[in-house]
Amino acid sequence: MTYHSGRHFLQIPGPTNVPDRVLRAIDRPTIDHRGPEFGVLGKEVLAGLRTVFRTRGNVVIYPASGTGAWEAALVNTLSPGDRVLMAETGQFATLWQKLASRLGLVVDMIPGDWRHGVDPAQVEARLVEDRSHAIKAICVVHNETSTGVASRIPLIRNAIDRASHPALLMVDTISSLASIDYRHDEWGVDVTVAGSQKGLMLPPGLSFNAISDKALAAASQAQMRRSYWAWDEMLSAGKSGLFPYTPATNLLYGLREALQMLNEEGLENVFARHARLGEATRRAVRAWGLEILCLNTEEYSDTLTAVLLPSEHDADHVRRVILEHFDMSLGTGLGKVQGRVFRIGHLGDFNDLMLAGTLCGVEMGLQLAGVPLRGSGVAAALEYLRTMATASHVPVAQNAT
Amino acid sequence: MTYHSGRHFLQIPGPTNVPDRVLRAIDRPTIDHRGPEFGVLGKEVLAGLRTVFRTRGNVVIYPASGTGAWEAALVNTLSPGDRVLMAETGQFATLWQKLASRLGLVVDMIPGDWRHGVDPAQVEARLVEDRSHAIKAICVVHNETSTGVASRIPLIRNAIDRASHPALLMVDTISSLASIDYRHDEWGVDVTVAGSQKGLMLPPGLSFNAISDKALAAASQAQMRRSYWAWDEMLSAGKSGLFPYTPATNLLYGLREALQMLNEEGLENVFARHARLGEATRRAVRAWGLEILCLNTEEYSDTLTAVLLPSEHDADHVRRVILEHFDMSLGTGLGKVQGRVFRIGHLGDFNDLMLAGTLCGVEMGLQLAGVPLRGSGVAAALEYLRTMATASHVPVAQNAT
Amino acid sequence: MTYHSGRHFLQIPGPTNVPDRVLRAIDRPTIDHRGPEFGVLGKEVLAGLRTVFRTRGNVVIYPASGTGAWEAALVNTLSPGDRVLMAETGQFATLWQKLASRLGLVVDMIPGDWRHGVDPAQVEARLVEDRSHAIKAICVVHNETSTGVASRIPLIRNAIDRASHPALLMVDTISSLASIDYRHDEWGVDVTVAGSQKGLMLPPGLSFNAISDKALAAASQAQMRRSYWAWDEMLSAGKSGLFPYTPATNLLYGLREALQMLNEEGLENVFARHARLGEATRRAVRAWGLEILCLNTEEYSDTLTAVLLPSEHDADHVRRVILEHFDMSLGTGLGKVQGRVFRIGHLGDFNDLMLAGTLCGVEMGLQLAGVPLRGSGVAAALEYLRTMATASHVPVAQNAT
Amino acid sequence: MTYHSGRHFLQIPGPTNVPDRVLRAIDRPTIDHRGPEFGVLGKEVLAGLRTVFRTRGNVVIYPASGTGAWEAALVNTLSPGDRVLMAETGQFATLWQKLASRLGLVVDMIPGDWRHGVDPAQVEARLVEDRSHAIKAICVVHNETSTGVASRIPLIRNAIDRASHPALLMVDTISSLASIDYRHDEWGVDVTVAGSQKGLMLPPGLSFNAISDKALAAASQAQMRRSYWAWDEMLSAGKSGLFPYTPATNLLYGLREALQMLNEEGLENVFARHARLGEATRRAVRAWGLEILCLNTEEYSDTLTAVLLPSEHDADHVRRVILEHFDMSLGTGLGKVQGRVFRIGHLGDFNDLMLAGTLCGVEMGLQLAGVPLRGSGVAAALEYLRTMATASHVPVAQNAT
Repeated sequence: MTYHSGRHFLQIPGPTNVPDRVLRAIDRPTIDHRGPEFGVLGKEVLAGLRTVFRTRGNVVIYPASGTGAWEAALVNTLSPGDRVLMAETGQFATLWQKLASRLGLVVDMIPGDWRHGVDPAQVEARLVEDRSHAIKAICVVHNETSTGVASRIPLIRNAIDRASHPALLMVDTISSLASIDYRHDEWGVDVTVAGSQKGLMLPPGLSFNAISDKALAAASQAQMRRSYWAWDEMLSAGKSGLFPYTPATNLLYGLREALQMLNEEGLENVFARHARLGEATRRAVRAWGLEILCLNTEEYSDTLTAVLLPSEHDADHVRRVILEHFDMSLGTGLGKVQGRVFRIGHLGDFNDLMLAGTLCGVEMGLQLAGVPLRGSGVAAALEYLRTMATASHVPVAQNAT
Repeated sequence: MTYHSGRHFLQIPGPTNVPDRVLRAIDRPTIDHRGPEFGVLGKEVLAGLRTVFRTRGNVVIYPASGTGAWEAALVNTLSPGDRVLMAETGQFATLWQKLASRLGLVVDMIPGDWRHGVDPAQVEARLVEDRSHAIKAICVVHNETSTGVASRIPLIRNAIDRASHPALLMVDTISSLASIDYRHDEWGVDVTVAGSQKGLMLPPGLSFNAISDKALAAASQAQMRRSYWAWDEMLSAGKSGLFPYTPATNLLYGLREALQMLNEEGLENVFARHARLGEATRRAVRAWGLEILCLNTEEYSDTLTAVLLPSEHDADHVRRVILEHFDMSLGTGLGKVQGRVFRIGHLGDFNDLMLAGTLCGVEMGLQLAGVPLRGSGVAAALEYLRTMATASHVPVAQNAT
Repeated sequence: MTYHSGRHFLQIPGPTNVPDRVLRAIDRPTIDHRGPEFGVLGKEVLAGLRTVFRTRGNVVIYPASGTGAWEAALVNTLSPGDRVLMAETGQFATLWQKLASRLGLVVDMIPGDWRHGVDPAQVEARLVEDRSHAIKAICVVHNETSTGVASRIPLIRNAIDRASHPALLMVDTISSLASIDYRHDEWGVDVTVAGSQKGLMLPPGLSFNAISDKALAAASQAQMRRSYWAWDEMLSAGKSGLFPYTPATNLLYGLREALQMLNEEGLENVFARHARLGEATRRAVRAWGLEILCLNTEEYSDTLTAVLLPSEHDADHVRRVILEHFDMSLGTGLGKVQGRVFRIGHLGDFNDLMLAGTLCGVEMGLQLAGVPLRGSGVAAALEYLRTMATASHVPVAQNAT
Repeated sequence: MTYHSGRHFLQIPGPTNVPDRVLRAIDRPTIDHRGPEFGVLGKEVLAGLRTVFRTRGNVVIYPASGTGAWEAALVNTLSPGDRVLMAETGQFATLWQKLASRLGLVVDMIPGDWRHGVDPAQVEARLVEDRSHAIKAICVVHNETSTGVASRIPLIRNAIDRASHPALLMVDTISSLASIDYRHDEWGVDVTVAGSQKGLMLPPGLSFNAISDKALAAASQAQMRRSYWAWDEMLSAGKSGLFPYTPATNLLYGLREALQMLNEEGLENVFARHARLGEATRRAVRAWGLEILCLNTEEYSDTLTAVLLPSEHDADHVRRVILEHFDMSLGTGLGKVQGRVFRIGHLGDFNDLMLAGTLCGVEMGLQLAGVPLRGSGVAAALEYLRTMATASHVPVAQNAT
């Protein structure tokens, strides 16, 4: 293969650039997962995750991808044939729906145009209609990685409350946790699903459930078959920082380091940084005269931006041009928007100049691919980043609490 | 905590000592799992695994522990309420049985004393009795990690054949693959279950199924609900070296390196090395005047040895003394044999002097703990290793095929 | 300290960004430097260095900084009180002169304005004047790291030849080797001095002499006292790939990897890449309306650019602003030009988007520091990089020979 | 080459096994050696070294091997033609003498049999004779790496004092520092020479001088030419934690980690551990019926043991047998004792079971090579280690002060 000098720009919306500190942490001898040293590690990462989920409740860690944590959320709380309400916000909502169906659940899918988040009003309407409380859970994706649209969880919570509906609220935060503000307890979420390879800055291979007491109570009644994903033994072993089966020890070393790094930066600073980089990216897209896939300005994602091309241009061609000439990977359009959009990831261990380099690559690639641009997105982004550099001087690292 | 100088001796029977080459391979930037570079990686590790499983058939890789691959074997091939035949060879056979039961299968468990492998005659008898072919699968653990007993899979295959029974044969090779001779195709196994953290010399976090065509046919009829573990999408994506959901990319880097190392040493040399180190360990145990848990000399495990202490001695006390004084971790007695046995792992990236150091630590620890020894196990082991050093001069590295 | 997310931009003109492959190579267990495995390593890196120096002659490797290789060049070939001719091209030429003086040599220094390279005509004039051949060596810096001016070695060689002067020609290539075309044999250089931390992409700690037969002959007569730097034992041990004293083994692992990487890219491609990135940087500087310190367009350095600020602006203030706001390190003005210039390193393991990010940071920093800019340097650089991306499609990796 | 499973036993007396923590520390991006972050690092390692040297005085760090620090000690303090007193304790004393001679010093060499340390009485006699104080320095090797003999520095200090001689005392601690008790200030040493690759647990590439005020005063008068090794600029820059030329940054990361590890263990514990492992080794040698090269029991080295073979056996053959069969490197016999002795390194990041494995390998190798043994050295060593495990329970980590 052609040799590439310098650093590859991995600007897909996850897996994100794993920082050296995390890679080095993973690159340590594996220890006995039944020994005393391991218990200390286990307790430490569970406590750190609670801070990141903003929960005082239960957290479990799976040696599995995020998809596994989706499955875990459902099989622990529901019974075969149960009805769940989902909303078609994009490819990942669709995949979760497909998974639920394969597991034998009946999914009510609120249709969507992939350019908006979950509509709280529609959720409320469906729940009000459901007088028999047949719907056992509402499952939404906080941040749709395929579209760059972030649904507003507090509004959905309010909708459920207004409908006085007892269904569980499950939220996928795979591409938002530790990047965008999220509050498991305060927002009344019952199961939060998350993964390691986005805001947590780890390689893929770990996933998580944060679990409310209500979800735990549901689990004691739920009839779906489960063993690997079963919360009961996980929570029981977790009290000592241990696991019911062999954990992915080396990734847990990385998790400890990543949690430490988030704490050093301070979660509020992390969120502010993602907000700044997200806004700079959107200004670039507008300056290019291209469309941001997300239509509702209240629902912009600060971790990725999906860019919609004029219909005569193939987004995958643009991506190939950029990969070939500038050694940068961008996210492909998935499902319904394949070939129409490309996605710029701007999350994780990331800063102003990395974004600047990214946008320069996108701008040159668009031009090389013959996409007409109205102006320089790079100039617009730099203007904004420069202004923010003085305006919001980053405060010294503080605790994330 | 007390500072420990030098290298910890991790002599549990897995996770094993991850070699530096594998750790360094894992410690690389994560790449786009949908890009062309990833496909090359995926195909390479799948091909390498086929060599190790000795199969021309299908292999899938899960971002999960070995326990997940147990679950995968069952949910892909069976239907709720199906009957499976298992044999109580030890703790891991018991855990697999428990997992099967939680998933809604009915398990016929051939009782065992934890000191023998699966009895082919009993398997045959059960199958002959089962005229209606209600038993859909026979699930056995090749190498019982809790006891150091290796069941003889070819004899079990023969037993099934003699009974002319159509049940699937599923084998757990978590602590034997890539250490002890194993042949998926030749031995007529339908599903082989394996994990990353033993003979494959990786950290935990990956597990595997090797799948016969008969198992694949069963999967098309099987009614158990599955999504994360479903073979169909795994096999379909695997043709391009890809995955249906985010794979554990960095562990796959390590897998590529480990497969390369096994190829450099040559599988036959790997097996010969484990045989030598296993025999040296058993000679040490005998010289100490202690009992090897495994009673059948035909069923000794070459990857670990469980040592049975006189009943007045607590094996966990011995382990603590050794950990405290000599910074070595040994395997605890699990389940029925808790406190009665300790286990010495002698597998993976391991050699004569590492074993010598290990046995020295065990010998001193036994003495410190007041366990009376008949003689020096170290002397017996060294005598054997020295003889073997000249007798069987290790041939130059050759291909594993 | 304030936490910095993402990757630091290390854009000083060396040490350069050490690629992950090199860091991982260094991060391996140290081996016996008297064992057979070491000899293989030693021979391999010596052979690889010959390719990079473009010499069939002798190369020695010191466990030392580049400053040590300066000292080695002098003490091996000269006698106390010998006269050497140097040219004041900048700070490093000045430091080499100071070092020579401390060692007891008499230095004739051709004065310079730090904005031009060595003037071949002046060299010729001095040598013609020196009828007694009192001058024993001409020592020049190929690429002045303090100014971004690259002297033209072949013209200097011609000047010496025209003067028919027998002096040795010594060239410091610390910041040019493996980045800019350089030919030890073809250009008739007697001692080439180099270091590990620039184009060779290693951490600092190794330095080199490439040695002509004429230099070797001079060494046999030279009276300066030497032991650590003595070529004789180095060359003698080097025949077996060994060293007369303990070498910096782990850095040699990195050197092997770096030489392999240069070979994969192909030296011609390496030079073309540096030429492209250098030109893009200079276009940016011109578009900003700032002055490039180097005045002679024939002498632009492709590894770094020194930017001269209007006299009312403090270059170190600009650097601090950029470090503080954008986590990027630039080179400070050294010696005579302190406070007047800053230096942008664009060498080593580096590519278009890394440069783009770098120039974005410089542009924003200049603006934040209140330096008036005529236009966008970023836009000018992107325009050029985009054009070059199609014009000169990088050929597939080829051998460097 | 033949593939070797498991960990290589690097039991030469240095470079020693570099611990993973140190390797990982080195494997980090290089930083700007003129930036503020570097100054913090520089000050920290200089302070840590002072603790290890037990000095309140000056310390300098060279990017160089230990041989460079020998040269530095001499060229900074002496003038051409100066007379120095040395003692032929072994190969390294001989090499230092040779180096001094090459540098133009006149060396008075007290002859030795390579089986004893420096004789304080002879030093005293020579100094008393030297009424004109022509001898400017006494240079001794604290721990002769070629013989395993540790000279008693306090007795030599006393000898000098008794002779009321003003010569400087220079001590090479390359293979003793941070392993055996050493006190620069208390013992009145003027220049201590040390290196990174032994007790400091680093790869080779750094070396050190600890400098008394008297040595500093001598430096201001010394006429030997020096630049790279010159203390003045080193000490001046060192006040800010900086260096006068590019330092070996990544090795300094490793040094910081190693100093932290020594502090965690506590220097007293480090010394006690080396004493225990040294004694265990000597007991093994005696049990084998072989001779320890060191004849004076007061001068045993706790970092290595040189074993003298019966004259009909070739020590290098034994070493080759051990390397081939057991993948362990031992130190060769150097100079006068080549082929007669092999050396076992037992220093650095090392513990009881690593030593046990080492001695097992030596015992088996001796037997394979046909060297007759009186008994089992392994058994004798284990007996001792076991006894010590209970006797001297290692105290919890404490500060090294």
